[in-house]
Amino acid sequence: MATLLGAGPGIVAAGARRTMTRCDGLASVSSSSHGIERVYLSAEHARVNRTVAGWMREIGMTTRVDAAGNLVGRLERATPSGAPDLDAPALVVGSHLDTVPDAGRYDGVVGVLMGLEAVRMLREPGPDGTGWRSPLPFALEVIAFADEEGTRFGRALLGSSAVAGAWDPGWWSLADDGGTTLHEAFVAFGLDPARVGEAARRPEELVGYLEAHIEQGPELDERGESLAVVSSIASARRFQIVVEGEARHAGGTPYDRRRDALLGASEAALAVERVCRAEHHVIGTVGRLETFPGAVNVVPGEARLSLDLRGELDDARDRVWRSIEREVDTIMGRRGLRWRSAEVHRAPAVFCAPLLQDVVREGIVSTLDRGVDDPATIFSRAGHDAMAIGAVTDVGMLFLRNPDGISHHPDEEVSAGDVARGTRALAEAVLQLAADRG
Amino acid sequence: MATLLGAGPGIVAAGARRTMTRCDGLASVSSSSHGIERVYLSAEHARVNRTVAGWMREIGMTTRVDAAGNLVGRLERATPSGAPDLDAPALVVGSHLDTVPDAGRYDGVVGVLMGLEAVRMLREPGPDGTGWRSPLPFALEVIAFADEEGTRFGRALLGSSAVAGAWDPGWWSLADDGGTTLHEAFVAFGLDPARVGEAARRPEELVGYLEAHIEQGPELDERGESLAVVSSIASARRFQIVVEGEARHAGGTPYDRRRDALLGASEAALAVERVCRAEHHVIGTVGRLETFPGAVNVVPGEARLSLDLRGELDDARDRVWRSIEREVDTIMGRRGLRWRSAEVHRAPAVFCAPLLQDVVREGIVSTLDRGVDDPATIFSRAGHDAMAIGAVTDVGMLFLRNPDGISHHPDEEVSAGDVARGTRALAEAVLQLAADRG
Repeated sequence: MATLLGAGPGIVAAGARRTMTRCDGLASVSSSSHGIERVYLSAEHARVNRTVAGWMREIGMTTRVDAAGNLVGRLERATPSGAPDLDAPALVVGSHLDTVPDAGRYDGVVGVLMGLEAVRMLREPGPDGTGWRSPLPFALEVIAFADEEGTRFGRALLGSSAVAGAWDPGWWSLADDGGTTLHEAFVAFGLDPARVGEAARRPEELVGYLEAHIEQGPELDERGESLAVVSSIASARRFQIVVEGEARHAGGTPYDRRRDALLGASEAALAVERVCRAEHHVIGTVGRLETFPGAVNVVPGEARLSLDLRGELDDARDRVWRSIEREVDTIMGRRGLRWRSAEVHRAPAVFCAPLLQDVVREGIVSTLDRGVDDPATIFSRAGHDAMAIGAVTDVGMLFLRNPDGISHHPDEEVSAGDVARGTRALAEAVLQLAADRG
Repeated sequence: MATLLGAGPGIVAAGARRTMTRCDGLASVSSSSHGIERVYLSAEHARVNRTVAGWMREIGMTTRVDAAGNLVGRLERATPSGAPDLDAPALVVGSHLDTVPDAGRYDGVVGVLMGLEAVRMLREPGPDGTGWRSPLPFALEVIAFADEEGTRFGRALLGSSAVAGAWDPGWWSLADDGGTTLHEAFVAFGLDPARVGEAARRPEELVGYLEAHIEQGPELDERGESLAVVSSIASARRFQIVVEGEARHAGGTPYDRRRDALLGASEAALAVERVCRAEHHVIGTVGRLETFPGAVNVVPGEARLSLDLRGELDDARDRVWRSIEREVDTIMGRRGLRWRSAEVHRAPAVFCAPLLQDVVREGIVSTLDRGVDDPATIFSRAGHDAMAIGAVTDVGMLFLRNPDGISHHPDEEVSAGDVARGTRALAEAVLQLAADRG
């Protein structure tokens, strides 16, 4: 298959080096002195938006922060007269700049920066002078989403949901650990909650969405491959579970008089593992557990835990949740505890558009040795902004190898070589799509 | 047995009503708007010290805050000439004013206030004019200890340990949840860490120590009795346990690749319950469990839990800890987790002095119907300031009925009638001791 990109290997490698250096630089923009933590509508969010906007402008993009705090860079379609066509639909390349607590430096960030380098390559003439060989038939945007992880308000994909026009007014009352509501945080960040709808994009404004992201799992590393086409993104549900017992003195209260919420919660966490292990392609995680009052000498009267459930298909995911509910009912009944759950996130499985899977595959093949043309195709167990954006336009994703599958951890890694191959594949995919539509 | 106290029933009842009202008033001195929380070296600590010092002065006591923040009220022994004998040894009546989080209003507080009412009764002539019938052969002190619960720094009995001369310089680096060290908190409170040794009392300064406290368990309520003599205070050990796994992405990491610290900690908490249930008179509680990084979509890389172990006898307590260690080793080995524990508190079982048990028993009998002379004698599963003070002088304790055994909880209760009986018994015990030594 023909390679459309003109940028030579030196330019690709320089772009990857720049991306790695920028990932290191953004890692220092953190609210924590111990590790990386950068959450929605924080001072760190504002700071990385400013930094990345500067990089966007360097490569000729216009920039704006949308009504939900997402950073949007845009390169207009050139018309035959040379005048920009401000109304042209855009192909969006995106990922996110927010992080989990004690995060790695590549999750999300590397996809945004690869988008910028892909734009640079598309504009840069290669050694043979053929780089920006023909005007693209669409505008190009890079969106740096402001909230994918849901770290601050417990609800993921806030930034991309706003762009997809799926903002739920019920979210305004979500509060962070300090009691600040999402509504208050909007105002403090300088945004107008009443105008969040303006962040929404209409389907006719968009050609499609491409996202490069680290795999966040070990599959590519185990196969010894750099890049993969993503076929679909797993369905997910998240719950907040509250277990209520009775706080009692730790010394004076015999076991038969106790209704210990932590012991019930501990059994529930183990039940999640047991139920999910018995089901193929569904995985459940209790990431957070807290006890109240949380004193060394008080039997816990209340425990709160989070549950994250993912499945390749919605049905299996929901079947597992019903099994967990039954098990937890039994546990709490036996211990004299009450429990309740609130669903805080639900996303159906999202399937990548066949055309966008094809152009991503062609992009990857362009990075492989001649004659090798079957890159890995895998489904994503992790959620991504593409899940939300899938509600408003076709989506496609490219995965980068994540050594040992370590993500959401300071040891998260990606190699400069894989970033170079991935960026080249991304730019090539854009050209393939342009050729398809041209 | 002869009743020595002259104060009539009206005076006793008025004192109990005042104690109940004061417990309600002190309950409003809290760092939390939701419930009662009053911790060592806080603004609330300073405020209750001031309030209670005012009440001490009302009944003729001199007051001071000692070098560790404990409030000390003193009534000197009168000499035949009428001049105070400033060097007389003191009988100390005490308990504490600090609380657990979301506490009840009686734990500790009621014992301090009963001490004040006992002093008032001892000075007040009864209807027959015989109240303060003879000068006591010792000074009387009421000490309101500043830290019994260990809520702020995770180490219990800081206030009474200072008085017992058992302050450990290693404690200075203990930090609260906000990172403030004990040393910093001392300075902020206006205390000089270098002078903490001045809070220590020498055995020759003390006649003994009496403490009234709610039972914090259901035993008296189940027996239908108001008051009990305490025979001993259970031995205790407290540990901070850290479980280390690896933080990984919740979606991308298959179970076989996970080393989930929370699941290990959950199994450990259940093992504590299982081991302790198999052993008579030993009880273990995991009161606090936290996960790190604590995000909904991250496999917990670390979990920290507290363990509180109590036993009537030290040997049984230590045998149970060794069993728990073996079980936890097995759990963590199976899950590929590391774990470590740090002992943050250890107190041997403390036995109440036979003489002080006798005077408390006589005090209780004086409140019973004529002819009833066998009040309950029970051991305390809960720790008390008396444990620390036992290192420097003889101790005796009086328990009040605690309806349904609910303590360390906003529903903690005690009846005004039991407070009246208990205060009378406490004052009577002081007179019995005076008679014994007089």
